[in-house]
Amino acid sequence: MANFLFHESDPFAPVNYAYEFERILCQRRTSFQELLIFSNPFFGRVLALDGVVQLTERDEHFYHEMLSQVALHAHPQPVDILVIGGGDGGTVREVVKHKSIGKVVLVELDREVVEVSREYLPTLSSGFADPRVEIVEAEGSAFLAGTRKKFDVIIVDSTDPVGPAASLFTARFLSRAHRALKPDGMFVAQTESLHFHRDFVREVQERLAARFRLVALYAVPLATYAGNWWTFSIASKVYDPREMRRKHRVPTKYYAEDVHRHAFLPASLYRKLMTDG
Amino acid sequence: MANFLFHESDPFAPVNYAYEFERILCQRRTSFQELLIFSNPFFGRVLALDGVVQLTERDEHFYHEMLSQVALHAHPQPVDILVIGGGDGGTVREVVKHKSIGKVVLVELDREVVEVSREYLPTLSSGFADPRVEIVEAEGSAFLAGTRKKFDVIIVDSTDPVGPAASLFTARFLSRAHRALKPDGMFVAQTESLHFHRDFVREVQERLAARFRLVALYAVPLATYAGNWWTFSIASKVYDPREMRRKHRVPTKYYAEDVHRHAFLPASLYRKLMTDG
Repeated sequence: MANFLFHESDPFAPVNYAYEFERILCQRRTSFQELLIFSNPFFGRVLALDGVVQLTERDEHFYHEMLSQVALHAHPQPVDILVIGGGDGGTVREVVKHKSIGKVVLVELDREVVEVSREYLPTLSSGFADPRVEIVEAEGSAFLAGTRKKFDVIIVDSTDPVGPAASLFTARFLSRAHRALKPDGMFVAQTESLHFHRDFVREVQERLAARFRLVALYAVPLATYAGNWWTFSIASKVYDPREMRRKHRVPTKYYAEDVHRHAFLPASLYRKLMTDG
Repeated sequence: MANFLFHESDPFAPVNYAYEFERILCQRRTSFQELLIFSNPFFGRVLALDGVVQLTERDEHFYHEMLSQVALHAHPQPVDILVIGGGDGGTVREVVKHKSIGKVVLVELDREVVEVSREYLPTLSSGFADPRVEIVEAEGSAFLAGTRKKFDVIIVDSTDPVGPAASLFTARFLSRAHRALKPDGMFVAQTESLHFHRDFVREVQERLAARFRLVALYAVPLATYAGNWWTFSIASKVYDPREMRRKHRVPTKYYAEDVHRHAFLPASLYRKLMTDG
């Protein structure tokens, strides 16, 4: 039987994915993007923005745990956390697992993503109910320019660096993020695929290295992002992000002590990435 | 502009890929399968069998190097090599990089894959010109049942374990492979995706553990296989496959000494894989 298919249309990827869908749960044009939630027999509920899959219930934990838990375990005492993007709530859910966290500010451009996630993605948005969470409706770079707060960890949970998220990888943005961190702060961002966006990964690594004492790259294979060898760029003023300074005491499905160490690229690959044409 | 798209139709994957194509170079019905070679602006030439992408010129080295080089470096002195499947020649090309190899037998069911690769995929089939290579047209399991030769390393380079390749993962096949290995031989096979085919990976690991003293699992993120967190099951009668017993002296793009070690799954993940529902 020919089923209904959702054909992804990702301008940033040389291959697009097609997903069977059972049912459309939500489809609307927000002020910023086309938002779609549908259900798939294998992946559960799937969120797409502007035709690009952002998460599925089945495998989002790989992404959200790895985006959040590495920095939260490499920093010895994270208290004030800033999340930029991530209106679905998956990253906030990971952050509030830590009892030691004092405050999480979520800066999201599109409040409708937050609303829709509350309604249709309860396993993602569950963290929003935590009293330590403050949601700010703003563009990430503008927020950083205007804030006087200082953070222990800044997490950038963005869409692809085209359109609304392009501003979150510029030299100016990274300088602002550096300034908004405490003297021993850490920064981490999703930085796309090693298979498809190698030049982009390298650019971000170089921009971070110009501003932070320690810069590293780790990766995780994701099933539902085109290119799938997904990178996270992490930068730190003091602590080596490869080392865990806190015991792993929060519930996770994928992240673990050996996964933390293992996620960082072997030296030979990192060298090739940073020097090959 | 709407371009021509090749829509993959993989019955073994819950997501299918769509590739732009510029030109069809070869399309024919062989005795066993539907064979297609097309060119793509990003991936170069792409080979699909029965509608499923088998390789692209751009990223095949990740797969072929990792399928071949781990066992060829963990075994201290591989001389006689058997490759089952892999009619495109990518695996044979990796094997003949080693001067110490005496003989490579390639057992391929579909001779037309070999012929077409010779014509359209020269960077894959280049190893066929090596005088140490013997090509046998046969089904892998039947070949093993009939042969009296003993091998140092057996490499299974199969399509998905449905249709023609289903016989290459049965208990019977693995017993025959074990018998066709020398007393210190090694076996390695591609075993699909950790994201999409976890039960299958576990089954093969268990069947190998019932026959070999040492069994392990390593993985590499592949851009063009659905599920992409691609596994290789390796089994050994004597030598630990995690350890390199030979210096890395052959030219490779991805495989390296630290990549060899790094490719094996962290213990916590392996435990989850083998015990989770």
